[in-house]
Amino acid sequence: MFKIAIDVMGNDLGIKPALDALLDFSNKNPNYYFYIVGDKTEIEKYIKTNSNFEIINNPTVVSLKSNSLLEIKKIDTSMKEGIFLLKDKKVDAFISSGDTASLLAYSVLFIKRLENISRPAFMPIFPTTTLNKKFLVLDVGANLEVKPEYLVNWAKIGKVFSEEILKIENPRINLLNVGTESYKGFGWHHEADERLKSELPEFYKGFLEPKELMDNSTDILVCDGYAGNMVLKSYEGAIKSFVSLIKKEVTKGFIRKLGALILKQAFRDAKEVLDHRNVGGALIMGLESIVVKAHGSSDKKAWIGALNQVKMGLENNVIEKMKVALK
Amino acid sequence: MFKIAIDVMGNDLGIKPALDALLDFSNKNPNYYFYIVGDKTEIEKYIKTNSNFEIINNPTVVSLKSNSLLEIKKIDTSMKEGIFLLKDKKVDAFISSGDTASLLAYSVLFIKRLENISRPAFMPIFPTTTLNKKFLVLDVGANLEVKPEYLVNWAKIGKVFSEEILKIENPRINLLNVGTESYKGFGWHHEADERLKSELPEFYKGFLEPKELMDNSTDILVCDGYAGNMVLKSYEGAIKSFVSLIKKEVTKGFIRKLGALILKQAFRDAKEVLDHRNVGGALIMGLESIVVKAHGSSDKKAWIGALNQVKMGLENNVIEKMKVALK
Repeated sequence: MFKIAIDVMGNDLGIKPALDALLDFSNKNPNYYFYIVGDKTEIEKYIKTNSNFEIINNPTVVSLKSNSLLEIKKIDTSMKEGIFLLKDKKVDAFISSGDTASLLAYSVLFIKRLENISRPAFMPIFPTTTLNKKFLVLDVGANLEVKPEYLVNWAKIGKVFSEEILKIENPRINLLNVGTESYKGFGWHHEADERLKSELPEFYKGFLEPKELMDNSTDILVCDGYAGNMVLKSYEGAIKSFVSLIKKEVTKGFIRKLGALILKQAFRDAKEVLDHRNVGGALIMGLESIVVKAHGSSDKKAWIGALNQVKMGLENNVIEKMKVALK
Repeated sequence: MFKIAIDVMGNDLGIKPALDALLDFSNKNPNYYFYIVGDKTEIEKYIKTNSNFEIINNPTVVSLKSNSLLEIKKIDTSMKEGIFLLKDKKVDAFISSGDTASLLAYSVLFIKRLENISRPAFMPIFPTTTLNKKFLVLDVGANLEVKPEYLVNWAKIGKVFSEEILKIENPRINLLNVGTESYKGFGWHHEADERLKSELPEFYKGFLEPKELMDNSTDILVCDGYAGNMVLKSYEGAIKSFVSLIKKEVTKGFIRKLGALILKQAFRDAKEVLDHRNVGGALIMGLESIVVKAHGSSDKKAWIGALNQVKMGLENNVIEKMKVALK
């Protein structure tokens, strides 16, 4: 039996989507046991403690926006309670849709790292313009500064995830840089480039600029968290702004509204391709257990995606495979 | 009389657009004298040397992709010839649509910097989703590493440009960072933040993430060239990929094609808002003269935009105003 802890607090859409997803998932996967951490009175409106669920009462939502790092270490939040279940090996994985910075902080503070991983990486799964084609980016903000060995080790564990969870054969690995010429970037780019060439020769494809990321140009993009964070937020921002621009233009006047009506499904299909719920949660990689950050406004579909991600990880034994890859 | 040197080589669309633009601009602005550097035989098919034009024969196109920095210093290219006209004070400004990296290298090597500017910045003008509303970003790649004083001085000269050329009153200045909280970023972010607060208190608005850049959230964004380059290329890439995704979706089947036909003008209007030709060339800022990098595939409209940018700079005496701002 696999055991998963879920922090249901801190989701923009409330606790219901997580619980709906849990009931659904649990029906199909009776070999999973869940510790549900959150507001017990609220949770029990949907789910009762039984042979598959244990409810732990802790309604305190954490946020590094309102609390300092020192404070969140001390206060007893639902997320921390979930992380401690993982720390104490009571569960095999932990999922939360709460505050990203807090989840990162708790993971770094309390969860043991894999051998040869000195810093965990925060890894979202990026969509491409091709439906169901995704790629991994690590790190996007846990480590503003990097050393070449971080990048090499992140490439190795990213590769295991790509092969085992995304089922990509011979994943392409690239290193994010401001240009593809060998002289571009910082010293650590050049050193990491050399090491990736020698340690992952069949997979490493060199530097990649952030220009064609969504055009299926890589499977695993390793980078410093500073640039990774800038790129992630730029892509999100550019698409959001462009969508609002298009919306503004296609609703100017009756004729255009008619055209927009005809194209409603086409716009939906485009949106579907980039839908975060098809992409899965982000992961904190490099830990001895699976920690998934579900999207901050996860609905049932997104939660099921995150649960299936964890399932794939556990049933394919990815942590053990990562240990081997890092040896 | 103002004098401008133009390197017409290295443009993806050939030399004609630049020459068409020059004839147009010169008719309206007879008080400008141009040194046109390029393939003389070709140029003379369109323009003859007269009281407004002098043609300098140099058909050698420069590119740091095919030549090393050491090589481009030695070889005699059209761009270098133009830069030397500026260096020798024969002209007041220089425009080229050739290789960006080479133009940056030549500018750094041969053109004197303004007092208190230790490093020039490469500054594109970014579009927003609001027509005719633009903002400046400096630096986007000339300096991967920065010091707080670079950022403060770039903010000051960016402010002069914003006020004098873009005619923005009380421009908002922001510092690019991975978060808006004061603890986010590197040490130099915090130091530059303090200095900007104290030196430009009425204009500096704090850290800005790269999420809402196109939503008219700033007028001048200062940043390290590493992050600036990542953000610039991410925005370009995201919009390009998203446009191709929309195109793919709206042409699936007859009905959708009909909708797309109705919305043709709406899509054009959206494209127009973001059109680089409405935005103007990028500038190499911090030099004692005006150096404009026109888009690599500049048509006549883009060239006229670049010429008018230079005109605004010269006639508003921006360089002198920048000197005062840096004092």
